Formats: sequence, structure tokens, C-alpha cells
Amino acid sequence: MRSVSIVGIGQIPVQKKAPETLRHLGAQVVRQALASTGVSQVDALYASNMLSDELQGQKHLAALIADEAGLVGIEALEIRAATAAGAAALRMAYMAVASGTAELALAVGVEKMSQGIPTPALAKALDARYEVPEGATLLSQNARLMQLYFDQYQPPEDAFAHFSVNAHQNAQNNPNALFRDRQYTANDVLNSRLIYPPIRLLDCSPICDGAAAVLLAPTNQARQFTQTPVQILAANVTTDRFRAADRQNPLAVEAMRLSAEKAFSQANINRDDIDFFEVHDAFSIMACLALEAAGFAGPGEGWRLAAAGEIGLNGRIPLSTMGGLKARGHPIGATALYQVCEIVQQLTGTAGQNQIPNPTTRPHAKRRRRRHNHNYPHLRRLISPPAIQNPSF
Amino acid sequence: MRSVSIVGIGQIPVQKKAPETLRHLGAQVVRQALASTGVSQVDALYASNMLSDELQGQKHLAALIADEAGLVGIEALEIRAATAAGAAALRMAYMAVASGTAELALAVGVEKMSQGIPTPALAKALDARYEVPEGATLLSQNARLMQLYFDQYQPPEDAFAHFSVNAHQNAQNNPNALFRDRQYTANDVLNSRLIYPPIRLLDCSPICDGAAAVLLAPTNQARQFTQTPVQILAANVTTDRFRAADRQNPLAVEAMRLSAEKAFSQANINRDDIDFFEVHDAFSIMACLALEAAGFAGPGEGWRLAAAGEIGLNGRIPLSTMGGLKARGHPIGATALYQVCEIVQQLTGTAGQNQIPNPTTRPHAKRRRRRHNHNYPHLRRLISPPAIQNPSF
Repeated sequence: MRSVSIVGIGQIPVQKKAPETLRHLGAQVVRQALASTGVSQVDALYASNMLSDELQGQKHLAALIADEAGLVGIEALEIRAATAAGAAALRMAYMAVASGTAELALAVGVEKMSQGIPTPALAKALDARYEVPEGATLLSQNARLMQLYFDQYQPPEDAFAHFSVNAHQNAQNNPNALFRDRQYTANDVLNSRLIYPPIRLLDCSPICDGAAAVLLAPTNQARQFTQTPVQILAANVTTDRFRAADRQNPLAVEAMRLSAEKAFSQANINRDDIDFFEVHDAFSIMACLALEAAGFAGPGEGWRLAAAGEIGLNGRIPLSTMGGLKARGHPIGATALYQVCEIVQQLTGTAGQNQIPNPTTRPHAKRRRRRHNHNYPHLRRLISPPAIQNPSF
Repeated sequence: MRSVSIVGIGQIPVQKKAPETLRHLGAQVVRQALASTGVSQVDALYASNMLSDELQGQKHLAALIADEAGLVGIEALEIRAATAAGAAALRMAYMAVASGTAELALAVGVEKMSQGIPTPALAKALDARYEVPEGATLLSQNARLMQLYFDQYQPPEDAFAHFSVNAHQNAQNNPNALFRDRQYTANDVLNSRLIYPPIRLLDCSPICDGAAAVLLAPTNQARQFTQTPVQILAANVTTDRFRAADRQNPLAVEAMRLSAEKAFSQANINRDDIDFFEVHDAFSIMACLALEAAGFAGPGEGWRLAAAGEIGLNGRIPLSTMGGLKARGHPIGATALYQVCEIVQQLTGTAGQNQIPNPTTRPHAKRRRRRHNHNYPHLRRLISPPAIQNPSF
């Protein structure tokens, strides 16, 4: 398998309501990713989206965006995995380059949630036969998990509030974040409107519009396209039982645990080598469960890292460093690709005021820096955000 | 890149209205494909579908089918390309095995069109901004192409009827075909109800339910799983301008032409080496345009092959050998995977009464059989049906 690197990124500010159409949002970030590398043609484009069928009445997005971006004749397919679609598109682009079927492959995510009513369409990620008829939505499912967490571990009332506080803190310095205007305290979160008990408004990521893209190339050619390629050290996708009710312990999020374990093993690194962590914090409870599933905290202990300030930019394990889903925004199909763009920013020292000091992303950097740097002296590396499929909140 | 082979297939009879749910249809063909090879676990499952968002209110199908089939913990993603989704799922499974990220990968397509009204959902494959508001549907777009063909080339009135006659002829001996009860003549086609001029009822593929799956493995391990693996010699995906109106010559179907050209070149074979051809005959005009785009006939000449009986099982280039979309049926997201199953049947000598006599699928079989057979003595080979993206009729 060929080693694959990210050589270009494109992202636009997440907006409450973008004036552009879906195809224009997509083409815009594609052009940005291409412009950053000086190439004008690619072999393949993989698009991710969740809601365009319902909200825009549009299928076949990949071919539409390819045409709009002037990339006629290329391979163009759409990848879906509910709210993990962006990571799935990256996964496919990764396989295209790794297999040698493409030299240059784009992953582009786009979502326009401002058009129409997204909630019923979002709920289609759940079981249409056994969950939705009982009133289940992504919100209600997360509320049940949060309540279960309170019941099982009895953390303090503000246990999850600190994840939102951290996200909003970081979003302030991200020009692409939706919420940049103010800082919130844990008290603000606890006093915000109760949406679906125990979830409050400031536990939730927002409905919004956005698009992001990344360009992949074989690692051994990456420096033709950029001075700061980012090698993908590991990529995998894992599923769990589809319905939360079928899982032995819904709080354990087995798909996340297995996916992280595989990623560490593929990359041949340890948890201690990780300098920051981007999680799917669509709801604050999910940030906490991700920390626990990936082994950064024991069961029932994830919130303690947040409460102790260890998830901040200077903490032990910085989380949602550019605002996360909570405050950068969560335009579903684009979200994971925003995360990848932000990871690239961190690893190439272009994260601005939110820059993590010198992320030692080389595997076992301290132990064997010399051996590994031999191959790719200036290469930064990342572990692809796992396309957690169930739960897909 | 690793060579990839098909080691198992699963297909169920196409039905007007299947009693099973989407997940059960999917799990059924997955189990069938696994059972045929004696394996119980795979690394990845790629699902294809087009209409479940609207007709079943269900997204996230890949994870749902994986769960239903007992394949928990594996990679499961959904691939979309409008009516070419099945070929796209095969493409992704192919890349997964070719890249070495999977040893065993499933492509499974499923569609249940009998639930709800599929036409508006199908039209979302067209441009929601510039085509659908003017009343465009897949039917109207095909009617325009057929009319353009009549205007430009002035073929006889029954030019396209012979494609339907051939499809229905072949469907009679396919136990999985929807239409098996009777044979039609060209006159029957011409006297069938006018649906959208000049398209008549017997020019159209039917609304129906179905599911099909194929299991892929590395070629060098394929014989662990079956005595009759089928190697995939070439696979590619090509797009054109999204809207037919933007294409210089809509009758040339540039995406098909380019895709076939790439496939021949990748496989290092000539048109003369092809013993049968499966096309996307959702409407009879598309079978004709496919023959021309792939170079089996000149522009405006495709219908002559049909009229002269050259597309029959004993003709020069047998077409739709198991009934095609027209008569086996066209359960959209499953269609291309039915085609692959049928190609495997032909290449392994299990196509029953429709068996093409000794398809010489080895590249340049006559010229250099010895050289090629050296590596895989008993291997049959196919060229993956191109995932023609635009037009996606």
C-alpha cells in the first residue's frame, strides 16, 4: 500500500445561512484546495453530504460539484455514512491514492442545513423501523446517553459544560468558526435553555452551512505540491450494533474504541504520542465519551479532563482546538473535512492564535526521531479522524 | 496495486413488490455471497442505493445492513452515484482490496421502489436548479435523446424496439428476472402505450425491488474461496458535463466513450476480445448509445446491430444476456451488482440456458493464451461495468 499525504486544504467560514448554492460552496473549497498546491486537474473527487436529498432536492452531488469546479471527465462519487460522511469521503480518497488508482484525489464535504427543516432528515440516520417511529431523533438519543451517564457515574451537574466552554474559547480565534463573538462560562451553559433534558442549548452544535476539502497525493510525490505535506499514518472505519439499545454498554461506544485502537496500532504509536485530539462533539456528551473510548480517560472519567482544564490548548490533551462541532459549527457532510483542515493547520504551524506549541506528531518522536525523519525529514503526520458510524450523532 | 477477483455472488429474484424490508433484502444477498465462499466474516461492506432517503426514510444503510447480516465491527460505508450506485460500490470494494486495506470486501446493492412514489426522487439525479424546475425527469431526458437520435440519424421507426425484444427474450431463462412470462416482438414494442413521445412502455425498464452482492478478494488468494474466481481486469469511473444541455453532442455520451476506452487500455485488450457486453439499458435508447460510445458501432449505427440480431446470445456482441435492466429489472441501487453477478455466471459457465458458448475472456485469448494462462490457469476475467455517471438514466 502506498503511503498517502494531504497536500492541500480548502475551507470557508461556517455560516448560519450561506447565500451560495450547494454546488458553488463545494466548487469554492475544491478550487481553494487546488490553488494552494498549484494543480488544476485531479484524478478523482469524492463528495460527502447527508441532507441534500431532502433539503435541496439534489442527488448525484459529486458529479455536480466536479462539473461546477471544471473537473470534467474525472471519477466522481459520493460517500455517505450519516454524520460521519466527511470522514468517509476522506477514507475513499485515501484508498484511491493508496491503491494507485489515483495520483491526486479530492475529498470534499458540503452541507446547507439552512434550507428547509433538517431535523426529520437527520433522524433518518437512526433506525426508521424501530427507533424513529418511537420519536427518536439524534437529539433524543444523545439526551438518553447523557442521562444514562449522570445515572451511572453521578458526575457533577456541570460535568459536560466544560467541553462547550473550551470549544467556544477556541472558536474565537478561528476565522472559519460560526461562533466567534463571545466566551461562555460553565454557568452560562448550565443556565442556557433546556432543550431535551438533560441537554441544554449550549450542549448542542448548531444548524449551519459550510464546505471543506482536502487534496491527497502519494507521500513520495507530496513535496511537488506543497512544502508542508501531512502524511496520513492510519485510517480506518469501524461500526457497532446499529441501534444503541442493542449495545451492551451504550456509554462505551465500541466503534470509537475499536477504531482508535486500530489507528494506534496501524500508526505504531501510543496514546502518549498524541498531542491533540479532534472529536465528534455534536453534543457535549459525545466529546466526553470519545475521550473515554479512545482511552484518554477511564469510564466515567472523561469529564474530569475537561473540568481540570486538560482539554485546553495548553492542557494534556487539547480538544476541538479550532472550536469543534460545537462552536466552529457542524455542517454535517463537511464537518470531518473541516476537522482534517484544522489538523493540517495545527501540524503545519498555521493555526494562528490557537496553535498548539510544536505538536510532536512524528511517531515516537522523542524516542526515535532520527530514524523516522530519515525518510521524510519535514513531514508532519496525522491519524485520520475515525469515521465513527454508530452512533452517528 | 493488487489484482482483485470476485469470489462470491448473491442475488435474489427481482420483484414487483418484495415483502422483505430493505435491510433484510440486503442481508439476504450478503449471506448468499458469503455462503458461496464459506467465509463468515469480511473486512468491509460497501452498500449502494439511490432512493431509501425518500422511500424508506432511512439513511446510513451500509451500517444497517452490516448489523442485520451479523457483520458487526467491520467498515461499512454507502456509495452513491445516482443510478450508477451499484457500480460505484463495486468500485470502492475494488479499491479497498486493491489498496490492501481489506482482504475481503463486499459490495451490496439494494433498492425497494415499490414503497412510495419513486419518480420525483429519481429526478433528483438531474440538476435541481436548472433541469427539474423545467419539468425534467429521467424519462423526459431519455425521450429527448431518442427524439434527437430520430431527427439526426433518421433510423426506421422500430430501430430501438429490437433492444427490448432481445432483453425480454433473454429474461425468460433468468430465474432472477422480473419478466419471464412471454416473448415480445418489435411490433409489440411499437404498439405498446406511448409514455413520453417517442418513448413507449416497452422501451422502459420497470419500477421494482431487488438486491445483489459480490464478494471481492485479492487474486492471489482467490482460489481459497472458490474454484471459479473472476479477475477484474479493469475498473474506472468517468463523468461528463452534468447537464445534457451542456454537452457538445448529447448522443455521443462522452463519459461512456472515455470509460470504455480507459477500460480497454487498462485491461490491454481490444474490442474484438469482448464476447458479451452488459449495458445500462434503463431505456432502449441507452442500449443503442452504449454500443456506439463503446465503439461497437459507429454513430447512428448502434440500432443496426440489434435489428440484424447481432446482440442475441449467438450474435456478434451479445447484450443484456440475462435480461438487462429492461427485463431482468432495474432496482436502481442494486442494478449494476446484478449485472456483475450475471457476468460472473457467464464467465463461470453457470448462466444456464443463456450461457454464451465458451466466452474467451482471457485477454487476447487466441493470440497469447499460453503466456497469460501461466499466471492464473483457470481464471476468468471481466472488465468492470463502467460506473457511467452522466447521463445517469
